[in-house]
Amino acid sequence: MGGRSSEEPFSIQSISKVLSLTLALGTIGDSIWEHVGRHPSSNAFNSLIEHELQHSKPRNPFINAGALRIADLLSGRFVQMEMAVVNLASTLCSNPTVTYDLEVATSELKSASRNRSAAYLMQSFGQLDNPVEQVIEAYCKQCAIKMSCIDLAKTALFYATNNEHLLKKPTSLSSLQTRQINTLMLTCGNYESSGEIAYRIGLPSKSGVGGGIMAVVPGHAGVCVWSPGLDRSGVSVAGLNALEFLIQKTM
Amino acid sequence: MGGRSSEEPFSIQSISKVLSLTLALGTIGDSIWEHVGRHPSSNAFNSLIEHELQHSKPRNPFINAGALRIADLLSGRFVQMEMAVVNLASTLCSNPTVTYDLEVATSELKSASRNRSAAYLMQSFGQLDNPVEQVIEAYCKQCAIKMSCIDLAKTALFYATNNEHLLKKPTSLSSLQTRQINTLMLTCGNYESSGEIAYRIGLPSKSGVGGGIMAVVPGHAGVCVWSPGLDRSGVSVAGLNALEFLIQKTM
Amino acid sequence: MGGRSSEEPFSIQSISKVLSLTLALGTIGDSIWEHVGRHPSSNAFNSLIEHELQHSKPRNPFINAGALRIADLLSGRFVQMEMAVVNLASTLCSNPTVTYDLEVATSELKSASRNRSAAYLMQSFGQLDNPVEQVIEAYCKQCAIKMSCIDLAKTALFYATNNEHLLKKPTSLSSLQTRQINTLMLTCGNYESSGEIAYRIGLPSKSGVGGGIMAVVPGHAGVCVWSPGLDRSGVSVAGLNALEFLIQKTM
Amino acid sequence: MGGRSSEEPFSIQSISKVLSLTLALGTIGDSIWEHVGRHPSSNAFNSLIEHELQHSKPRNPFINAGALRIADLLSGRFVQMEMAVVNLASTLCSNPTVTYDLEVATSELKSASRNRSAAYLMQSFGQLDNPVEQVIEAYCKQCAIKMSCIDLAKTALFYATNNEHLLKKPTSLSSLQTRQINTLMLTCGNYESSGEIAYRIGLPSKSGVGGGIMAVVPGHAGVCVWSPGLDRSGVSVAGLNALEFLIQKTM
Repeated sequence: MGGRSSEEPFSIQSISKVLSLTLALGTIGDSIWEHVGRHPSSNAFNSLIEHELQHSKPRNPFINAGALRIADLLSGRFVQMEMAVVNLASTLCSNPTVTYDLEVATSELKSASRNRSAAYLMQSFGQLDNPVEQVIEAYCKQCAIKMSCIDLAKTALFYATNNEHLLKKPTSLSSLQTRQINTLMLTCGNYESSGEIAYRIGLPSKSGVGGGIMAVVPGHAGVCVWSPGLDRSGVSVAGLNALEFLIQKTM
Repeated sequence: MGGRSSEEPFSIQSISKVLSLTLALGTIGDSIWEHVGRHPSSNAFNSLIEHELQHSKPRNPFINAGALRIADLLSGRFVQMEMAVVNLASTLCSNPTVTYDLEVATSELKSASRNRSAAYLMQSFGQLDNPVEQVIEAYCKQCAIKMSCIDLAKTALFYATNNEHLLKKPTSLSSLQTRQINTLMLTCGNYESSGEIAYRIGLPSKSGVGGGIMAVVPGHAGVCVWSPGLDRSGVSVAGLNALEFLIQKTM
Repeated sequence: MGGRSSEEPFSIQSISKVLSLTLALGTIGDSIWEHVGRHPSSNAFNSLIEHELQHSKPRNPFINAGALRIADLLSGRFVQMEMAVVNLASTLCSNPTVTYDLEVATSELKSASRNRSAAYLMQSFGQLDNPVEQVIEAYCKQCAIKMSCIDLAKTALFYATNNEHLLKKPTSLSSLQTRQINTLMLTCGNYESSGEIAYRIGLPSKSGVGGGIMAVVPGHAGVCVWSPGLDRSGVSVAGLNALEFLIQKTM
Repeated sequence: MGGRSSEEPFSIQSISKVLSLTLALGTIGDSIWEHVGRHPSSNAFNSLIEHELQHSKPRNPFINAGALRIADLLSGRFVQMEMAVVNLASTLCSNPTVTYDLEVATSELKSASRNRSAAYLMQSFGQLDNPVEQVIEAYCKQCAIKMSCIDLAKTALFYATNNEHLLKKPTSLSSLQTRQINTLMLTCGNYESSGEIAYRIGLPSKSGVGGGIMAVVPGHAGVCVWSPGLDRSGVSVAGLNALEFLIQKTM
């Protein structure tokens, strides 16, 4: 019997950063790059060092500091930014039952010391518009969104096909912007393993510490793998192997 | 009219770190060094970089992260660690009117983002025993202690003369420990200017962003200068020049 | 009169790193990754910091330390590795007149302090098989290879089409390896601007301080632009704008 | 039987940096500080990181980069700077037989990759007046000077007593400069252990990887201990313990 079902929802964690970036690009627009950079980060996903050295802005929207800033920017646009992310997810995968797990969010809120440290650092640089606790709470809820492999594969398909007609006002994304999100996933989507994984699988992808990896085959397909065992950089071991196998067999 | 009086109390700010270190060494003992290092810091006084790279513990008790950890350790020993620091200050300068300025403490509590960032970073490493806000509040009150130049010169005299009989149980310090505090002031007492200032004046000293500098002439005298204009590293410009002049004339 | 010709040879400089990587992958194989990493570098192209922090190996084959190591590895395989790179370039662009400019190489050899520093650092880590001066000389000659825009566009076409039949033994490259070289160009091809440029143009590309940029349109085309005016990161300003314009008009 | 004699000469290695600094201060004067800093270094003794980050100048004269720069400056003043250092050593310890060990110097010259890396880095910043190999050779000879414990204890006495009359023109040192050299030994004299050792023994001291430690008791005495077993930072283990024991018994 058993095994996990491709329809079983799991915590998408950092994969939600792709959604919040999409929402921010679609509603606020390219001006978000005044607040967040587009450089690969060579340090661990939650490192403060590069941010402190940079001083000006988080290196990219997929390190925690950058995702916190995106959540902060979206909090100036939506009363509950996490619900706006949930709605975007629902739209992209055509599944109205997507939601976040309050229990997971509450639990992570209690152990968010590292993220609070990053948020207060940004606040000390004058880079946070909203109170730290409000941003941390929204961010924890966003990370606690639950989706299944099928949901995320459908979502990936959106990025694969530049389907700009799927999104309705006020959210809308040009095909150029979609391609740019793909490039960011390729260069920054997997913490400090981004370069290594880009080399191995050669596809835009985004992993989460829940064990999921969403991958985009531009022009062709969306893929999602899920297996909770993580390597030291926080990427699913079996998931990555499966992706690599799939690519060797098909490309 | 005219000029500041040597009896006018001012905010001692980081000079209080010498007092809290003394209190910690005198009540908790040498085991504090399991939690705080004794290395000079080459970065700015509030840098998180070295701490993050070290991971194990703050570099020394005079950078903010180290002083926060000392305040944390003392909070496990005293219900109100800031009052214990006030009492030590009173004893060392024989002035029972020493206290902290609640208004200053409250104001600094509001803008303590950087220190909160450091405290949450330590908490994420499992290096903080008490809640962040409690430690930050105690620390801000400790920094808001007001003392005059005469008060601090008398305090410096304690460190100059290894007067171990001045302190009564439960606080007591060996002459070796007093000498060691002097060495720490010499090597780490003035933020990233510590090396430069050690070279220029050659004496243990501790500066605060309130404009005060307390200096120790081992075996001979205690000195305090005060002038609010600060250089880029946060050290009183006129104060440092006065100290240098004094040394050239007398040593 | 007038304007530069697309047939005018110029100094390809760092673009040669793609050629030497190709040669190393084709002759030595995947074992080169035991000696050079595949991580994007967030510091300047000639930074020693990351290498020293890493200690184990240069971050990627497109930073100078990595390219020096590749030249070192190839020097163990070819008596004159620079001539082997010249021959590969000739093959890829079907132009038997490709060669390097001895005068340029000699001049750069004199001002190669930074590269010598990197090479001696590697030697001190036991990471260099051949004498420093031998490696530096081969590397300077490799960088002094002269090719025209047409030559480099044809070369780019090889990477665009995975044309594995073009190379004959002993050099041969699988289509997977070719795709991997493309990914490295995308993630690391333009010094510390790699992430920014990947975002803007979304194509594998490699720039050189001679003002050339070679770009790959996977499955479709090879492109080369050349204009000597460089931005602070060492990338051709006009060349990059031209590439961006081309992409906006065609994709 | 035996044990080592206090009259047995050993390789003073980095202790020679105190001598070369003294010579530079005495002959070139305070202008050397335009080329070398006076900041404690928190990284290992041969780290390039801080130097690269600083860019302007080596952090202090006791890290290798700083000592190389001092050797370079002295090479502009003396045909054979190493012989000038030998002569200074002879004068300070009243022993005309002091010299350097050519075999040791030649051997270290062969394995000086790390120092060559530092020297070429400085050259790339335009911070070296003489050719790299000339500076490295002079530096290796300077480090190969052999002195006994008695020689170095006498030398330390010079720094303890500010004996400005000992030196004759053209070398002369004010008592202020002597005190400043002592402060530098205290803050930077023992690589990355400087802070820790300053705390433990509270005296200016300088260690070398030959196992010697020269220590200064200001106003009172000069001390030298020697034992080849080194800790991870390159400081003699038994020597440091002996010094600590001596201090506890006498101060």
